[in-house]
Amino acid sequence: MTDPLPPGSTVGILGGGQLGRMLALAAARLGLRAHVYEPGAGCPAAQVAARTTCAPWDDVQALRAFAQGVEVVTWEFENIPTAALDVIESLRPIRPSRRSLEVSQERLAEKTFLQGIGLAVAPFAPVEDRAGLDAALARIGAPAILKTRRLGYDGKGQARIMAPDDAGAALAAMGGRPAILEGFVAFEREVSVIAARGIDGSVAAFDPGENLHEDGILRRTTVPARLSAAQTSDAVLIAARILGALDHVGVLGVELFVTPGAPPGALPGALIVNEIAPRVHNSGHWTQNGCLIDQFEQHIRAVCGWPLGDGTRHSDVEMENLIGHDIDRLPALAASGAALHLYGKAEVRPGRKMGHVNRITGPAAR
Amino acid sequence: MTDPLPPGSTVGILGGGQLGRMLALAAARLGLRAHVYEPGAGCPAAQVAARTTCAPWDDVQALRAFAQGVEVVTWEFENIPTAALDVIESLRPIRPSRRSLEVSQERLAEKTFLQGIGLAVAPFAPVEDRAGLDAALARIGAPAILKTRRLGYDGKGQARIMAPDDAGAALAAMGGRPAILEGFVAFEREVSVIAARGIDGSVAAFDPGENLHEDGILRRTTVPARLSAAQTSDAVLIAARILGALDHVGVLGVELFVTPGAPPGALPGALIVNEIAPRVHNSGHWTQNGCLIDQFEQHIRAVCGWPLGDGTRHSDVEMENLIGHDIDRLPALAASGAALHLYGKAEVRPGRKMGHVNRITGPAAR
Repeated sequence: MTDPLPPGSTVGILGGGQLGRMLALAAARLGLRAHVYEPGAGCPAAQVAARTTCAPWDDVQALRAFAQGVEVVTWEFENIPTAALDVIESLRPIRPSRRSLEVSQERLAEKTFLQGIGLAVAPFAPVEDRAGLDAALARIGAPAILKTRRLGYDGKGQARIMAPDDAGAALAAMGGRPAILEGFVAFEREVSVIAARGIDGSVAAFDPGENLHEDGILRRTTVPARLSAAQTSDAVLIAARILGALDHVGVLGVELFVTPGAPPGALPGALIVNEIAPRVHNSGHWTQNGCLIDQFEQHIRAVCGWPLGDGTRHSDVEMENLIGHDIDRLPALAASGAALHLYGKAEVRPGRKMGHVNRITGPAAR
Repeated sequence: MTDPLPPGSTVGILGGGQLGRMLALAAARLGLRAHVYEPGAGCPAAQVAARTTCAPWDDVQALRAFAQGVEVVTWEFENIPTAALDVIESLRPIRPSRRSLEVSQERLAEKTFLQGIGLAVAPFAPVEDRAGLDAALARIGAPAILKTRRLGYDGKGQARIMAPDDAGAALAAMGGRPAILEGFVAFEREVSVIAARGIDGSVAAFDPGENLHEDGILRRTTVPARLSAAQTSDAVLIAARILGALDHVGVLGVELFVTPGAPPGALPGALIVNEIAPRVHNSGHWTQNGCLIDQFEQHIRAVCGWPLGDGTRHSDVEMENLIGHDIDRLPALAASGAALHLYGKAEVRPGRKMGHVNRITGPAAR
């Protein structure tokens, strides 16, 4: 157990995208300084951080200077090179720890871990080659999804296999990288739980939100999710179990499939864990306008050894992502009664997350 | 009418204290960059602004470079030297305009303005010397308050006159500066209204809050204020009248005395305008956790020509200032379920505002 970092301390954030930006803003509210490390120039977080180091992940001198200038290091994305983490970890604590990173950087490790702590996941099998894929398909059946084990996000590095004939093309799409075949889960809806775990082991979960994806990218999260009381309770318990098993310090997002029927190993209406994100998550952005303390502040509180805040939802919220040229609707959106959260990205690109809006749809319904 | 500034534009903020800091944070949410101009080193706003110019108010070159690097200029405090404003105004629009500054920089001008637009104020008289003070006291009567006309805030530059015998000491406390004598208003409570006016003349007011001062410094604001529906409506109309008469663009705070009886020129229960602040105001900090859009974002929206946002209150809130060593209560406060807003000030000094906390006390009562 560590003493909480006093105000005026500096939090190091690896990655300067929108999540790093909103973490830096939350740190500022708490009187903490943010020092962002990001290889790309002109990143969103640099505009709001007290300090930014713009250097590549293999610049050992820059990494050392960064670590020496901060009290604790956290990250905004999972795919940070191991060697960079080695340098930082020799100097300052990294929270959440590398265990959380390792499990979530690799889909096979993640699924194995989740299954190992007794949670329901889609049937899965590792795939290295065509023979392995055929064997996996024979066991799991089609439809199924072939995914690269690493570096996948927002639907990239994935190929659907609707019938065994699709196997060759799907495998080719993996580009020779190790893959995992996941059985298709027929789900009614996808929900996610964002939960935080403090350095003292205390856990606080936000109410589950219901997610709608388009083209593999989150489009909308609606809170509350349409879940029974038992399902809501299950969702929170699942998140708590994962947090505890990882000894995670900080926020973690869990995507869950709500099943209509009874897939193997699951009760009707049961929740199947789709994937975890060991960090603040897009599907938790609604908390900025639905709760007294949002996911970004919970994360900063946790990694700085502060007590977790009160994440009770005061309002029902609908969060909508602004993707690519959605941002062109800005004048109308600004006038619409929605809260805007824009990321300071200069260039609009198709599929690029430019910002999001939160709409309060009413007082919290329970 | 001007086109709204597009995201990525830079807002210049004169003054780098906590109000400048929270304005910069609000600008960031909207995808705008903040450039802060502040003579003092290591100011609170510099930690969160995209850029900071640390230079004195008489550095014409720095002022010019600052103005040329931003699209619009606003301010966080009223006492900016006129010559600095001259330089900036020759290059970029200043919002709110200097009319709002001029009226509120000088108490005699402010009272005269308020009376001129038909609002009730405490009886007042200009005071230059002892003879003038005696004459003013003879007309207004004791108790009364003698105040310097300029540079007063948080109870500084004020002296109470409980009886004519106090006149000499009170005048001495003015240090030879022009003063104003204000009749003492017997009030039940002080409330304030924070309202915004857009560049198109639209007005949005937050619900009035009830203020408690200690030693001349705001200690606590409770929302909603204990007001009748008619008083609430009056308070909002008073703010709107001031905003319109000043052609103000941005946020303005109005402090009002709620009177129990019938002072000269006022109905029982009427509202007497105490003073105005032509900017975001400490008594509006509750909006950060009580409304979808807070006072800081309303101000940035207004000065950037954006439509005003929805400032409807979703929750009842109590705001408490953390003054001086109040900040030592931090560990307990962090655990208390309150939202913390700390200003990043390194040095604790008695009377110094170090931060504030907002507590949600329930869903919005109406």
